[in-house]
Amino acid sequence: MIGIQDILQAAERIAPHIHHTPIMTSRTINAMFGAEIFFKCENLQKVGAFKARGAVNAVMQLDDNTARRGVITHSSGNHAQALAYAAGLRGIACTIIMPDTAPAVKAAAVRGYGAEIIFCKPTLESRLRTMEEVAQRTGAHVVPPSDDDRIMAGQGTAGLELCEQVERLDLVMAPVGGGGLMGGVATAVRALQPGALIVGAEPAIADDARESLRTGVLQPPADRMTIADGLRTGLSERTFAQLRSMGVEIETASEESIRSGTLLVMSRLKVVIEPSAGVSIGVLLERPDLARGRRIGIVLCGGNIDLGSLVFG
Amino acid sequence: MIGIQDILQAAERIAPHIHHTPIMTSRTINAMFGAEIFFKCENLQKVGAFKARGAVNAVMQLDDNTARRGVITHSSGNHAQALAYAAGLRGIACTIIMPDTAPAVKAAAVRGYGAEIIFCKPTLESRLRTMEEVAQRTGAHVVPPSDDDRIMAGQGTAGLELCEQVERLDLVMAPVGGGGLMGGVATAVRALQPGALIVGAEPAIADDARESLRTGVLQPPADRMTIADGLRTGLSERTFAQLRSMGVEIETASEESIRSGTLLVMSRLKVVIEPSAGVSIGVLLERPDLARGRRIGIVLCGGNIDLGSLVFG
Repeated sequence: MIGIQDILQAAERIAPHIHHTPIMTSRTINAMFGAEIFFKCENLQKVGAFKARGAVNAVMQLDDNTARRGVITHSSGNHAQALAYAAGLRGIACTIIMPDTAPAVKAAAVRGYGAEIIFCKPTLESRLRTMEEVAQRTGAHVVPPSDDDRIMAGQGTAGLELCEQVERLDLVMAPVGGGGLMGGVATAVRALQPGALIVGAEPAIADDARESLRTGVLQPPADRMTIADGLRTGLSERTFAQLRSMGVEIETASEESIRSGTLLVMSRLKVVIEPSAGVSIGVLLERPDLARGRRIGIVLCGGNIDLGSLVFG
Repeated sequence: MIGIQDILQAAERIAPHIHHTPIMTSRTINAMFGAEIFFKCENLQKVGAFKARGAVNAVMQLDDNTARRGVITHSSGNHAQALAYAAGLRGIACTIIMPDTAPAVKAAAVRGYGAEIIFCKPTLESRLRTMEEVAQRTGAHVVPPSDDDRIMAGQGTAGLELCEQVERLDLVMAPVGGGGLMGGVATAVRALQPGALIVGAEPAIADDARESLRTGVLQPPADRMTIADGLRTGLSERTFAQLRSMGVEIETASEESIRSGTLLVMSRLKVVIEPSAGVSIGVLLERPDLARGRRIGIVLCGGNIDLGSLVFG
């Protein structure tokens, strides 16, 4: 379990290397929901996602002996870029295990940050085995995407900033995938604005976190192709325990609501977000009662979307 | 002709009602061009475009007698929303003449700001005739989208802010449609950073401003369907004279470069821009020599794009 102390220390540790991201608001969105919604723009964070926070927090804590052997992870998403970025800051090697089905643009982005990529088969088993083999051979230190206290504390700094930037929040929302962001943010909110309701947003077709919290038993990740592709991973025992202990509730959004929410944010705030960042507002589209009359903080987790698919009219 | 004094007065007049928009930068884009590029984010302006500046500047200068009879314009684009917004601030009536082919979403946006819409046939002749009729009947004051000194001075405040926010610019770029933005921005830059090269960006398939400046004779608007739909209008004698007098040069970008430039800005800065705002970077993609080694200010004119066409992967 992490506590607010871990997040405060993380904030100090990572401050020179990450953006203190802005809060954005939209009068139209507020009028639509009869609420005051404050968007925490982690899409404007380094590497385009909150993941930079946790990765920098983990890498900066390594002792010199460990750091010298480099870091490694398996990811085709934002955590890969984040770890590559963090390793680059420290001047150490970084290896990313990536499924050979990953889009070339993601591989290029990771290489752009100076990391080496090793491709594997697109199964979790192949990812883990390849990572183990390489880590054993090179002695590289494994930095997981969410199942790690340093990662969770780092991500929690987004919640810390939100609580500092906006007073008297009634409700704080963030998406739930592996639970690193939600676990960290919930811990910050519980400590700094203890009265706020904390709601994790999850795709309805991949609602394993909701089921885990409902049943009290950790459920395997729902293997469904939600457009919120950053949320296809499941909780770990560690993040599950953190979410339970902080009294996080889960609400879900349909794929159509996620899409509408994503477009609503992009068209009104004029910032690019990835579908995973649209799930929270997607939840509110289905549950306007949750929003009405409230001051709401929403963490926009990232902005890494494939814009090549944008069709001009 | 307007001068820097007009722009300074406009800035003071509109300050309570418009956003002082931020400058954004991207390390990746800078590395790509070997330049320092400073993006002035008018896509984050009120109504999502610089047009709010000119419209507010015009409406706030009306004497009470004129204002009482309301304002009118013909536009299906950002100027319509901007004038509706400005009229709302002053609490006066606003009528927008809009072609009956305009997308419903644009009409809804204008109504959202409290304006009344009167539809006409989708020809310039029908627009002008309808506007004249309504103006004669109601006594409403016509506020044109660009052919107006108050409008040009208002738009120029974007250039004023840019020059205040970024020192020692070697090159300033803005898109050229009706010439209101470019005329105002060029006037500010000539006064405040006189050494800077000023380049207007225009779609290659609608290069009437380039032809006007090259031949010294005002050319009619090129009636071509560029994706930079905000730039389909032509210069007026007034804006043409302003551009000539400020030594503006014109460079063009192909449709493909405009598209690439738009996607580049959206994917790296994580802000939504309309294709008209991608023309300047589109020019640099074709003319990297213009960029290399320079400090460049680029006005991102707006962010009003139809995101309904965004296809999620």
